[in-house]
Amino acid sequence: MRVKLIVAYDGTNYNGWQVQPNGITIEEVLNRELSKLLKEDISVRGASRTDAGVHSLGNIAWFDTDTKMPAEKIAFALNQFLPDDITAQGSARVADDWNPHTVESKKTYEYRILNRTFRLPTERLYSHFYHYPLDVEKMDVAAKVLVGTHDFTSFASIHSDVKSFTRTIYEAGVTKENDLITFRITGNGFLYNMVRIITGTLIEIGGGLREVSEMREILDAKDRGRAGTTAPPEGLTMISWEETEGEND
Amino acid sequence: MRVKLIVAYDGTNYNGWQVQPNGITIEEVLNRELSKLLKEDISVRGASRTDAGVHSLGNIAWFDTDTKMPAEKIAFALNQFLPDDITAQGSARVADDWNPHTVESKKTYEYRILNRTFRLPTERLYSHFYHYPLDVEKMDVAAKVLVGTHDFTSFASIHSDVKSFTRTIYEAGVTKENDLITFRITGNGFLYNMVRIITGTLIEIGGGLREVSEMREILDAKDRGRAGTTAPPEGLTMISWEETEGEND
Repeated sequence: MRVKLIVAYDGTNYNGWQVQPNGITIEEVLNRELSKLLKEDISVRGASRTDAGVHSLGNIAWFDTDTKMPAEKIAFALNQFLPDDITAQGSARVADDWNPHTVESKKTYEYRILNRTFRLPTERLYSHFYHYPLDVEKMDVAAKVLVGTHDFTSFASIHSDVKSFTRTIYEAGVTKENDLITFRITGNGFLYNMVRIITGTLIEIGGGLREVSEMREILDAKDRGRAGTTAPPEGLTMISWEETEGEND
Repeated sequence: MRVKLIVAYDGTNYNGWQVQPNGITIEEVLNRELSKLLKEDISVRGASRTDAGVHSLGNIAWFDTDTKMPAEKIAFALNQFLPDDITAQGSARVADDWNPHTVESKKTYEYRILNRTFRLPTERLYSHFYHYPLDVEKMDVAAKVLVGTHDFTSFASIHSDVKSFTRTIYEAGVTKENDLITFRITGNGFLYNMVRIITGTLIEIGGGLREVSEMREILDAKDRGRAGTTAPPEGLTMISWEETEGEND
């Protein structure tokens, strides 16, 4: 059977999602502990291959297994094996040919910016520290320019290897609570480094280094060189992946 | 000259404040980096010898030095050498015989409890996770019983090695914001593990395992065996040490 697993993690101590030669990854830990639990070789795949240092409250892993354990009990059993910084939030059986890339879905990301003149040591892991004042209203207006279906070439890493740079953004906005600025964005998919490049651009707009109007110019240019720098990973959290109705075309 | 240093740290990766054979400590890192910076052997002492895993926003270190660097510039210079999880918040010259144990002062601690049915991996480092419901009002009433000058033998680790178990608590209270319960306590000093033992007792009261009225009975008993268990370190943060007027008797 095929099993879907919802996975939350603190990405601080991992070299991202995907197995690679250097450093331990989330995928690697899931493979190892699922294989121990189910006593067979398990190899998971992930809905979002998050980068080193990026966190998640609800990434999706899926894998095939011959186990007799009911699918919905796997998450709880797996948590007895997982380290403190990775948690299975739930598990369920899915169709044998199910995979998150072939169903219509939406993903939500949040990027947190600590915006004041100092940072405490206990504030360094889950937000990006930026000490010049940022204009949140300008950032919010600029973020909303991205809503809709666009070619996001300008906001994709030059290392992107995809057929199409077109994505649909359903919602985007920037809010502030005390000294914490949160950029939240929901779309049908994101290109490599897209949320972090958008955030870097929003920071330059909020800090007065660029005009709000530049957001549309950058989008239209379809040129990575026009957008801002890539914001660091620690501020980014993948919040959720949700299946929406119907199938992709 | 003698220099006072205000130090904030994330205690997660340290074996507490005080130098010891196993594991790296805050004191050890400060000694090493101050010695590098000032090019002489520096040996600091600390106002609060916090335990492994306990955090601080404002512990006090002091040391003697022959440096020509102005005392108030040492904090900034030191931060260029310190790791991300320790920060010098400020530095100042003090009298050659100054030490925090000989001046009247007050210390404030906070203990944070995440009180809901689940915990995310990104929530594990700076609060204690407790999943049974807690009655915050009962905890607050019980905490306020401790205000005043008392013999706190019941709330001191049996490993305490002090002349007097009498301390004065100026303020104590328990508040809740969303799922986060915060116990805040200010006093002229605290015994070894005192805040964590009080917290463990408050949790038992809040969870209905003990009556609110037991707090006074425990205090009067002067017997560590009567109080609750010691709450784990990750929820505890030393908030501040402040000099108050006059000298101790």
